[in-house]
Amino acid sequence: MTKIELKASERIDQIAASNVQIIQSREVFSFSIDAILLARFPRLPKKGKIVDMCAGNGAVGLFASSMTQAHITEIELQERLAEMAQRSIKLNGLEEQMTVINDNLNKSLDYINTSTVDLIFCNPPYFKLDEASHINDNHHYTLARHELATNLDEIFETSKRLLKTNGHLALVHRPDRFFEIVDKMRAHNLIPKRIQFVYPKANQAANILLIDAIKDGKAGGEVFLPPLIVHGEDGAYTEEVHKIYYGEA
Amino acid sequence: MTKIELKASERIDQIAASNVQIIQSREVFSFSIDAILLARFPRLPKKGKIVDMCAGNGAVGLFASSMTQAHITEIELQERLAEMAQRSIKLNGLEEQMTVINDNLNKSLDYINTSTVDLIFCNPPYFKLDEASHINDNHHYTLARHELATNLDEIFETSKRLLKTNGHLALVHRPDRFFEIVDKMRAHNLIPKRIQFVYPKANQAANILLIDAIKDGKAGGEVFLPPLIVHGEDGAYTEEVHKIYYGEA
Repeated sequence: MTKIELKASERIDQIAASNVQIIQSREVFSFSIDAILLARFPRLPKKGKIVDMCAGNGAVGLFASSMTQAHITEIELQERLAEMAQRSIKLNGLEEQMTVINDNLNKSLDYINTSTVDLIFCNPPYFKLDEASHINDNHHYTLARHELATNLDEIFETSKRLLKTNGHLALVHRPDRFFEIVDKMRAHNLIPKRIQFVYPKANQAANILLIDAIKDGKAGGEVFLPPLIVHGEDGAYTEEVHKIYYGEA
Repeated sequence: MTKIELKASERIDQIAASNVQIIQSREVFSFSIDAILLARFPRLPKKGKIVDMCAGNGAVGLFASSMTQAHITEIELQERLAEMAQRSIKLNGLEEQMTVINDNLNKSLDYINTSTVDLIFCNPPYFKLDEASHINDNHHYTLARHELATNLDEIFETSKRLLKTNGHLALVHRPDRFFEIVDKMRAHNLIPKRIQFVYPKANQAANILLIDAIKDGKAGGEVFLPPLIVHGEDGAYTEEVHKIYYGEA
């Protein structure tokens, strides 16, 4: 194992179902179940190019890395997070397969050629700027949660430019913005095809939304995948989520 | 019990959870789980007016009748089905509460005043005309399944005219037309608010879609209700669906 220096407040986390180790810190934004579910949601290309937008500390791309030979580019605006992603890549010996770009995603075309990407992951800020009740004093959290530095139109415009025809955008977001997301995706010729709702418990409304959209796809015939339920009645993870976290029993 | 004459091929069905008896016949279209789920989906107004469009043999309105004091109008194009609905109303002694109109739904405004309806149920034909593989030799089935005599635009235009501001349209349909439905609803100022997907089994894609839309509602904040799963792994009804059919144990 490569020796990597951890800064104050940092720790190394591992999802048992994966071999990948990820440097985390409470001072900035840590990955949550959203990132884990997003990484296993789309069919991964065996080779080619994957881009992880709004990458944070790189969790989604790092989880996906062991399931594909494709090159994975992490794009993250916040220097502190991009730098953590870079060290996690080194920690896992993935320098050949993975690259970090520390820039705004709307600058992606400065680094990656148009229409060359097979799959884009995106775990973006969920809240509109007017949803002020969620604003956090910590600027790292605010940028990760609020559409301050980017927004859906910019993400979809950039995705459309980066993706090949029939390339996929896999997005995780909140169900209460589903129609807005679908409208804006389609306005950028990204056609939502496979959708999965995630429910905290079997008797509660969905709180996470996963969408797989295809660039220049044909409209109609959308598929709503089996529901993913996170917790059982006893509050423990369901068998399905347990497997995602810890692998087969 | 009122004595009602049954025609050849007819039978009387009852869902144990309800007291209502419904005249059915294999020669025409019988109600299925879709109708039962639709009837218990929206919040029912205590009084006022309910319209059941594409009513068939009247199953949705008949199921709903015991849960509300509202007047229920069944609109059905096919004379054979409308006449069965009329006899079922008589069979259950519901002549005061329920009315049948045997006409095309686009003639609804000839019978019901504009902007006076609190809730519309609709279990429409699911297939577009070009989906010819599903065309059945039996004309009764073809009219019930295919957009031959009506279509989504006509249903939503009529619904918009009939409903009060903030009145509800409760629709059951197929998930693979979800985006088309949402687009056409919104084009008629019917804003989808509560959505529920129904899955044949926990590990299968959704095959039934329930939507509750509000006339002149505010866009955004859509809610995806807990998943409804019909069959367990053993093929028997889940506890939830068992309760819907047979009531509390």
